[in-house]
Amino acid sequence: MLINCVAYQEGKRMCDVPVAQISEFLSRPGCFVWVALRDPDAKELEQMQHEFGLHELAVEDAHHGHQRPKIEEYGDSLFAVVHTIELDDGELLVGELDIFVEERYVLSVRNRSRQSFLGVRARCEREPHLLKQGTAFVFYALMDAVVDRYFPVLDALETELETIEEEIFNKGSERANIERLYELKRKVTVLKHAVAPLMESVAKLYGGRVPHICINTQEYFRDVYDHLYRINTSIDAIRDTIGTAIQVNLSMVAIEESEVTKRLASWAAIFAVATAFVGIWGMNFSYMPELKWHYGYPAALVFIAVVCGYLYLRFKKAGWL
Amino acid sequence: MLINCVAYQEGKRMCDVPVAQISEFLSRPGCFVWVALRDPDAKELEQMQHEFGLHELAVEDAHHGHQRPKIEEYGDSLFAVVHTIELDDGELLVGELDIFVEERYVLSVRNRSRQSFLGVRARCEREPHLLKQGTAFVFYALMDAVVDRYFPVLDALETELETIEEEIFNKGSERANIERLYELKRKVTVLKHAVAPLMESVAKLYGGRVPHICINTQEYFRDVYDHLYRINTSIDAIRDTIGTAIQVNLSMVAIEESEVTKRLASWAAIFAVATAFVGIWGMNFSYMPELKWHYGYPAALVFIAVVCGYLYLRFKKAGWL
Amino acid sequence: MLINCVAYQEGKRMCDVPVAQISEFLSRPGCFVWVALRDPDAKELEQMQHEFGLHELAVEDAHHGHQRPKIEEYGDSLFAVVHTIELDDGELLVGELDIFVEERYVLSVRNRSRQSFLGVRARCEREPHLLKQGTAFVFYALMDAVVDRYFPVLDALETELETIEEEIFNKGSERANIERLYELKRKVTVLKHAVAPLMESVAKLYGGRVPHICINTQEYFRDVYDHLYRINTSIDAIRDTIGTAIQVNLSMVAIEESEVTKRLASWAAIFAVATAFVGIWGMNFSYMPELKWHYGYPAALVFIAVVCGYLYLRFKKAGWL
Amino acid sequence: MLINCVAYQEGKRMCDVPVAQISEFLSRPGCFVWVALRDPDAKELEQMQHEFGLHELAVEDAHHGHQRPKIEEYGDSLFAVVHTIELDDGELLVGELDIFVEERYVLSVRNRSRQSFLGVRARCEREPHLLKQGTAFVFYALMDAVVDRYFPVLDALETELETIEEEIFNKGSERANIERLYELKRKVTVLKHAVAPLMESVAKLYGGRVPHICINTQEYFRDVYDHLYRINTSIDAIRDTIGTAIQVNLSMVAIEESEVTKRLASWAAIFAVATAFVGIWGMNFSYMPELKWHYGYPAALVFIAVVCGYLYLRFKKAGWL
Amino acid sequence: MLINCVAYQEGKRMCDVPVAQISEFLSRPGCFVWVALRDPDAKELEQMQHEFGLHELAVEDAHHGHQRPKIEEYGDSLFAVVHTIELDDGELLVGELDIFVEERYVLSVRNRSRQSFLGVRARCEREPHLLKQGTAFVFYALMDAVVDRYFPVLDALETELETIEEEIFNKGSERANIERLYELKRKVTVLKHAVAPLMESVAKLYGGRVPHICINTQEYFRDVYDHLYRINTSIDAIRDTIGTAIQVNLSMVAIEESEVTKRLASWAAIFAVATAFVGIWGMNFSYMPELKWHYGYPAALVFIAVVCGYLYLRFKKAGWL
Repeated sequence: MLINCVAYQEGKRMCDVPVAQISEFLSRPGCFVWVALRDPDAKELEQMQHEFGLHELAVEDAHHGHQRPKIEEYGDSLFAVVHTIELDDGELLVGELDIFVEERYVLSVRNRSRQSFLGVRARCEREPHLLKQGTAFVFYALMDAVVDRYFPVLDALETELETIEEEIFNKGSERANIERLYELKRKVTVLKHAVAPLMESVAKLYGGRVPHICINTQEYFRDVYDHLYRINTSIDAIRDTIGTAIQVNLSMVAIEESEVTKRLASWAAIFAVATAFVGIWGMNFSYMPELKWHYGYPAALVFIAVVCGYLYLRFKKAGWL
Repeated sequence: MLINCVAYQEGKRMCDVPVAQISEFLSRPGCFVWVALRDPDAKELEQMQHEFGLHELAVEDAHHGHQRPKIEEYGDSLFAVVHTIELDDGELLVGELDIFVEERYVLSVRNRSRQSFLGVRARCEREPHLLKQGTAFVFYALMDAVVDRYFPVLDALETELETIEEEIFNKGSERANIERLYELKRKVTVLKHAVAPLMESVAKLYGGRVPHICINTQEYFRDVYDHLYRINTSIDAIRDTIGTAIQVNLSMVAIEESEVTKRLASWAAIFAVATAFVGIWGMNFSYMPELKWHYGYPAALVFIAVVCGYLYLRFKKAGWL
Repeated sequence: MLINCVAYQEGKRMCDVPVAQISEFLSRPGCFVWVALRDPDAKELEQMQHEFGLHELAVEDAHHGHQRPKIEEYGDSLFAVVHTIELDDGELLVGELDIFVEERYVLSVRNRSRQSFLGVRARCEREPHLLKQGTAFVFYALMDAVVDRYFPVLDALETELETIEEEIFNKGSERANIERLYELKRKVTVLKHAVAPLMESVAKLYGGRVPHICINTQEYFRDVYDHLYRINTSIDAIRDTIGTAIQVNLSMVAIEESEVTKRLASWAAIFAVATAFVGIWGMNFSYMPELKWHYGYPAALVFIAVVCGYLYLRFKKAGWL
Repeated sequence: MLINCVAYQEGKRMCDVPVAQISEFLSRPGCFVWVALRDPDAKELEQMQHEFGLHELAVEDAHHGHQRPKIEEYGDSLFAVVHTIELDDGELLVGELDIFVEERYVLSVRNRSRQSFLGVRARCEREPHLLKQGTAFVFYALMDAVVDRYFPVLDALETELETIEEEIFNKGSERANIERLYELKRKVTVLKHAVAPLMESVAKLYGGRVPHICINTQEYFRDVYDHLYRINTSIDAIRDTIGTAIQVNLSMVAIEESEVTKRLASWAAIFAVATAFVGIWGMNFSYMPELKWHYGYPAALVFIAVVCGYLYLRFKKAGWL
Repeated sequence: MLINCVAYQEGKRMCDVPVAQISEFLSRPGCFVWVALRDPDAKELEQMQHEFGLHELAVEDAHHGHQRPKIEEYGDSLFAVVHTIELDDGELLVGELDIFVEERYVLSVRNRSRQSFLGVRARCEREPHLLKQGTAFVFYALMDAVVDRYFPVLDALETELETIEEEIFNKGSERANIERLYELKRKVTVLKHAVAPLMESVAKLYGGRVPHICINTQEYFRDVYDHLYRINTSIDAIRDTIGTAIQVNLSMVAIEESEVTKRLASWAAIFAVATAFVGIWGMNFSYMPELKWHYGYPAALVFIAVVCGYLYLRFKKAGWL
């Protein structure tokens, strides 16, 4: 679905362009065309391929989707695949933004994503002195918008980890914790797969040998890289903490088990003693003088209570009860 | 076993070539020969070595088989070893495809693999504008076909992992889970050994210093690399998840053990109390007035029942039962 | 909040400079201006941006804060973000110091940090022969001051680890140990995130391709790098030790559990034997001759005591009790 | 001990050379000398050092032995240390082969190894067209022989791992498994220490900057590298599998423990119920009407059996028994 | 404390030099001065800094001590920090050797170390043909002496590991083993911190871009590197083995626990059966014919003994007892 298709000159919006006339505008000097598609069908992509002369392999990637994040050079043009990540009721939805950039055009193709990039266009148009820098700036603005939206996702994951951490030393929550840690790890992996390969790719847009069209916008891409690096470091920290938390959770299970065993052992001992004694006085020997005593019964009960009480206190002192 | 041996010119099929005349066709300008063998014996390989002038070490590798995936340069020719992987009733069958490429010939040798590559030849012949690019394109087409067949294998492994994950927090399935995780890990390792070294080797076919015959098909090999990279990343993610799942499974065992111990302790306590009391009234003291009461017996039973019921409720509340 | 704003010439303090006249001083030959801000608001930063001609992206970073430690080149100027870390009652407080350096100015912006850097200025002014080297030396002095303050933090963490290590083989402290190890790991991660990226960045200020203004102060930055490297190595050692300690702690839990189980089993066995015997003589068979013996009862008690005593000694010898 | 000392010309054996005349032969054009020693004493090494002008540090290494595998350049000559590994009744015996190579000589020194390299010499002499390539080919042939002998060792270790894996899910074999896994890990480490550093060293004999004498035999050394790489990958896979197997083994212990605890708990419950009931009817209350019933006793036994049977079935159903 | 201060020419000892005249000797052609200090105070270091013109930062490092091992270039001079490690009754003592080298002088500063380096000087003076190579050779000789002394430390640690390994599958030694493994890990870390950074630094003294004064002694430093590499590999192997041993030890605890639980369960079952039966015959039903039998009592005892014996044998067979 075509969202919009606009021509720009000197950083200012010229006019909306009918798709069929795109190639005409591409030949005008000092002018570039910025097209946005959403969940396009094969025919729309084919039309774009024809108008812009896109490389077959790149179009194929955009059509099939489910690519890993990457930025590839095809001659003078760049082809970028970026994952969009949205939080939906605790679940992560992964969409894809494919961007084709050349000196004269930007084509963005959004797939399986609810997020709109209209805001990016609006902001760019409000800042003509920046937009004047051409398609590379548009490319940057789109990338920046996607990467900025990773931050709330990261925050949500970090908050979730903190919530689990608060529970981790509470007795009885081990089963819930381990389930939540496992689930969190799964989500973090999704974010990691969006961020890490993109970071690697963006690193090639500044510093060393840089694609021709990005030469004057290197500082912007370094900024994007910097954000990605920060997110990536945080992800690695979360992953590391999850690993430790799983270990710690296991330790807590073991410690609790150990405490239960001790209490079990203590009570078992106390009752075993009581049972042994009542068993003794339940024996049928003919000559058991204490059985005849008038206060033999209460004395026996008191005796047993004293012994059990003594054991109880001793176990209490040893921290077993 | 010779499958076929065909000469191509300008991207079009010229004719089938008898093996003995291969060297003749190799000297014709603008023409190349594409030979496919399957599980060849030493004699067939020797004949090929003679016709194409293959390097001794490469032929030896092709003959012995069980090489690691690799792409080696011998002068102007390339020698590639690729693992084919097929799913057979849940098991992975590993075969080997050895490819010798030079500007004038492609020789593919298939070993221990059920998969046929006839489809690759058919597709190439349907697209003469691509086949015109020469033997490097054929080389790409073969590699691409092998790598494409890794995807269903990967999917099967991911599906298996998801099936295990659904069971991982279910009580009582820990033994089955750990066995399946171990088995899955073994399979993933097989796929990893096919993919990782190949990825490294393909990375040398584009970008930097590239073998002469691959210079014009770099973008294709980057595409193959990209697929391999994606598979490799997924494999690493599976491996990482298996590691975590094994740990989590151990935690689940420990948690369940802990719960069983608690229940055991609770019931043990309840019955120990009952046994102690009945033991008391089983003692043979002469003066135990309650034994003479008319309702002593039911009162004792009720008393014991109340005490045990109280304990039961308390354990219930504590989550032990 | 402006702390101070001073012009220097030939390593000597010239005079305090009103903010509005900064640009005037910047144009004087052989003179540089060193400004210090603390928790500035947007307006103050904007003013500085105007006076010094700072890059928009750098100012934005300084304004938003919460950047990762880094050193970036913007043309001839450098922009550094450094984390300050203070110990506050066992907790780590993370602040941020942003430094803008060019040949003619140093602007330091301190955020969320209690530590003052007045001492750095005082020391610099006491050593005019060093300060003569220009803004790069001021830059070094600020970095050095921040990094030097990492050492007491590191020491505190190492001391904490040692305290835990002393407890690690003590029975009964496993729960406390695991909580403290987890907490320590969290703190160490905070320090790691301050040190590791900074180390990487500082490594670019000496040796290879060095920013223009740092060329004559390379040995100083190598010294800073060296300190960071040392801290980083110590951090990694602590992290590694924490990992091992968590494992060892789990082992200790398991060992203690095992010992408790053995004691439980031993006592259970002893009392089970006693109970079985008293049960035997509590049976109601008509012909149980020993029940009629005059010394049957004490003999039975002695017999039971001897059997239990034998068991006790045997368990003692086996190390179970 | 001198094994043999032979001069070669044009790939053909000329004659045996007395040690004292070696230097004479070295000066003849187009001729090289190949000397083999076995467990030489200091004097023999000194003589060789004198005849060939070997570097002091290399001779010292050869004399002391217990070097790590390595290939070092001393001017135009190469000094290689290679570990020989033999299987002896399940144990690994590590020997050492030191090779000194220059354009005019090869000196191989075998230490603490039962394996003879006479076969290498014989094979070389049977293939004069290869031996014509000079000392580098001899060097390759020796390396190749050593590396080829790693394969049966690797196979033995892999077989051992598979044997353990077959046992890993069997109950009751956990103790034996863990001992065997530990022992296997030890052996694998020995092989790893022979292979990994050698692989690194051999990688420098082809591709980039190659020692002068190896320039024409690069493809051979790539082949050796390839074998080492394959062995190394397999070793890493074994190590990884051992790590997982140890974890899995621990899980199996925990699972079995858990099962035992469940069975223990079940039987304990059943007998506790029985004991409580028989205790009830063993009480001495005066008015317990059922005690007077004619079929009270069998009724009680049946009642107890029914209750216990019910519990038994319930535990059976729950999978505890 | 000054140990000695000697001038050398052409590899031969000229004379002892008073500290005040050092600078005089430095200006004589073909002569160098070798000074050794031990635990110097600030004043002695200052004097040396003055005489040799040492760099301020290097002197500061030497004064403060507790540096990480490193080799730094200050212009034409080198500054090396090396850790000396001594075994003292099982504990590791870490000292420091700081070496300042230039073409005309070597200054060694020994701190907190009992080891003397007089032997190094004596050996150098006995080999004038080597000492003729100048200060770089002295530098090598000192490094070599320090590194050589790591070997007995490494041996001691390896022996300790082997001692633990012999105990690792013995029952009941788990607590001692885990303590010893933890302690060993701590010691190995100390050695690692001495070796690893030094290895990295020494790697820069041969091969690529080498400091001017080390150009002719590269093969010697490669030898030192080689020793360090070997030690480092052994350390890594020990660490890896410790990690595995800790895991294995935990498994052994779990296995032993499991065995104890089985034995406990077995005996509990046997006695529970006995207790239940004696309870049955202790019931007070009026009509229990077997109680009247003349041989009822012995029959009952035999019956119980048979049942318990049967259980005993069955548990024995199952390996639980």
